[in-house]
Amino acid sequence: MTPLDEALRLEALAEGRFRGHTHPGYANMVGPFGGITAAQALAAVMQHPARIGEPLTLTVNYCAAMADGGFDAIAQAVKTNRTTQHWWVELRQDGRTVTSATAVTALRRQVWQRVEHQMPVVPAPETLARAPSLRFVEWPRRYEMRVIDDPLPLVDDDTEHPSSRGRMWVRDDPPRPLDACALAAICDVFFPRIWRRRARKTPAGTVSMTVCFHADAALLAATGSSPLLAQAQAQAFRCGFFDQAVQVWNREGELLATSQQVVYHKA
Amino acid sequence: MTPLDEALRLEALAEGRFRGHTHPGYANMVGPFGGITAAQALAAVMQHPARIGEPLTLTVNYCAAMADGGFDAIAQAVKTNRTTQHWWVELRQDGRTVTSATAVTALRRQVWQRVEHQMPVVPAPETLARAPSLRFVEWPRRYEMRVIDDPLPLVDDDTEHPSSRGRMWVRDDPPRPLDACALAAICDVFFPRIWRRRARKTPAGTVSMTVCFHADAALLAATGSSPLLAQAQAQAFRCGFFDQAVQVWNREGELLATSQQVVYHKA
Repeated sequence: MTPLDEALRLEALAEGRFRGHTHPGYANMVGPFGGITAAQALAAVMQHPARIGEPLTLTVNYCAAMADGGFDAIAQAVKTNRTTQHWWVELRQDGRTVTSATAVTALRRQVWQRVEHQMPVVPAPETLARAPSLRFVEWPRRYEMRVIDDPLPLVDDDTEHPSSRGRMWVRDDPPRPLDACALAAICDVFFPRIWRRRARKTPAGTVSMTVCFHADAALLAATGSSPLLAQAQAQAFRCGFFDQAVQVWNREGELLATSQQVVYHKA
Repeated sequence: MTPLDEALRLEALAEGRFRGHTHPGYANMVGPFGGITAAQALAAVMQHPARIGEPLTLTVNYCAAMADGGFDAIAQAVKTNRTTQHWWVELRQDGRTVTSATAVTALRRQVWQRVEHQMPVVPAPETLARAPSLRFVEWPRRYEMRVIDDPLPLVDDDTEHPSSRGRMWVRDDPPRPLDACALAAICDVFFPRIWRRRARKTPAGTVSMTVCFHADAALLAATGSSPLLAQAQAQAFRCGFFDQAVQVWNREGELLATSQQVVYHKA
């Protein structure tokens, strides 16, 4: 059982009601890594006995800081159709909502398919050094990251960079077969784009993240524990917030997920 | 009062409980245009007396077909922080949820800002013909659309197009000062990207749409009723669904909103 499996373990209390715990291996500076919270919210849907289909989309709203310790996960099917199911999820601590989420699960069908956003040509993961661990943050140690063109800025020199785009090869450490919860977490592995574009490590935190799952279970299984190519870029920084658009491909160039998040930053 | 103002009119029944109506001017083939439903869900938040701040992000999940007629809109502040507020919204007909949504409103601040996804160089709206009305669909008549490179395919010739990207100048008809509700609706004005990429008008419907609002109220006011440049492109088509990433700029090149939606399509 890997740290990710441990973090995703939810104890069923009643139908649609689970007990989970933050995991010290995914600790951020304050509270848990947002990606693991997203994965835990999705895990409540995945473990719901009435679920039909596979994840299609997930929106996670980070309402309040999550404290280290236990939480209740409540998942409710708002509407069940023939091939899609709409979910409402809350993570609560001490009776207060700390995370709200919606998700759609769907029966997938093998029909006409195309990748339009093609995987960029980048060096193979074997040719790149693993990113060093950070002294004060635990969760990056749970990922084998091989950064291509997006080193963590070490100096706040305010030398503005023309682009916030970053790319890395990434997979869980220890390697673990990919599933939708792991993929949701990986959509959040990038440091805030403002640190790169503005070249200043101003405090920042994700407000909301939406993940669109293109991969069905068969493609996730075929991807297994191979490194994934992840790319992130902001489209605009304005009035104290910016967005971050993400794509995740497997080595064969299949686009597994696309994501968009909104991030708060301090002046 | 324009048709959009009429469509957004909600009668307050109790705190966070409103009565609204579908508008015949925004009728789609079956039920209303998804963009107007998104705008109505956001309108319930905007009219809530406890709201703080301006829209930052909105996710709308189309759970079930909305019938023409009245609906209840329920908006609830899940969490109110000092500068952000997290919302849960439902549109109901006959006691059943037809649309679920989450939104975040936030106090915006004039701080460091950049547009990273720059407005493409395209012909001015004055040089382009207005798109013709469609005989069987009412809602496109509520928009002045000047299509740049994305004509509605008229023949299903299955001649695959290398790109699904489409661009148009668009504004409400009659022209109306832009606000966040109008902007949310405009994020949904594109026909399904599969009609272009695959070149087959297979039935398709939006499952979920997320809008990130970059513009604050001052920028929306400055934009007024000028035409907006809207761009849409899919990133992947797989297993019966595809995504559609959207950007909306004003004529001055400010990025007002970015959006991502997930669309179902028939084989």
